[in-house]
Amino acid sequence: MPSHEQMVAAVHAYVDAFATEDCEAIVRLYAADATVEDPVGTPLRRGIDAIRAFYAMSVGMRAKLTLAGAVRAAGNVAAFAFSVHVTMDGAPYRIEVIDTFSFDENGKIAEMRAFWGPHNVHQLQELPG
Amino acid sequence: MPSHEQMVAAVHAYVDAFATEDCEAIVRLYAADATVEDPVGTPLRRGIDAIRAFYAMSVGMRAKLTLAGAVRAAGNVAAFAFSVHVTMDGAPYRIEVIDTFSFDENGKIAEMRAFWGPHNVHQLQELPG
Repeated sequence: MPSHEQMVAAVHAYVDAFATEDCEAIVRLYAADATVEDPVGTPLRRGIDAIRAFYAMSVGMRAKLTLAGAVRAAGNVAAFAFSVHVTMDGAPYRIEVIDTFSFDENGKIAEMRAFWGPHNVHQLQELPG
Repeated sequence: MPSHEQMVAAVHAYVDAFATEDCEAIVRLYAADATVEDPVGTPLRRGIDAIRAFYAMSVGMRAKLTLAGAVRAAGNVAAFAFSVHVTMDGAPYRIEVIDTFSFDENGKIAEMRAFWGPHNVHQLQELPG
């Protein structure tokens, strides 16, 4: 089971990879047969190819993550609150999200779940132009 | 399925019930056959009697909750970050937690999971005396 420090490091690596728009650095955090449920209640993305395609889209939207408060770690699961700044159709948005990462015995993310909904999406000012 | 507003109201009712030390107000938020996993990775408390006993202990420790950021709501699940101030053996502690509430079709909590671990527990100053 990963240590607390390993799980916190994975969360920070995840945030940093968005900052540097490094899709492969995100994908490397995942186990080959991992699942991503983003947002919770939508169909699972299963396996590293589906996960790569999902994050290529997010990184392409220039999503940038800002942690809000401490990473919570319980057993082999980390939970963390953050906001995402992202541009859609030229307009900037902030989305408030909580993610959970369940880690496997190798310290890879086996299951990711993202909790957010329409009420957590806030359009910021329109871009000039 | 409960509305976003119903899920947010349940989270606020939960926080308020700790503030007023009203254990039964907490219990009323739960379905009769609900489960509580607090913290994640420990055995489930199953059913309203086990849930009442659990919260009687928390309320008895004068646990007080302060929300941190918006409630995230995805489908029938709400996730929220908060800190708990609690007194154990006469000393005050702050614990950083993220909870998820999964609601049933009646708007009752069917499944609660609390994400926190030893690294999220912070002893505050010793009480004088």
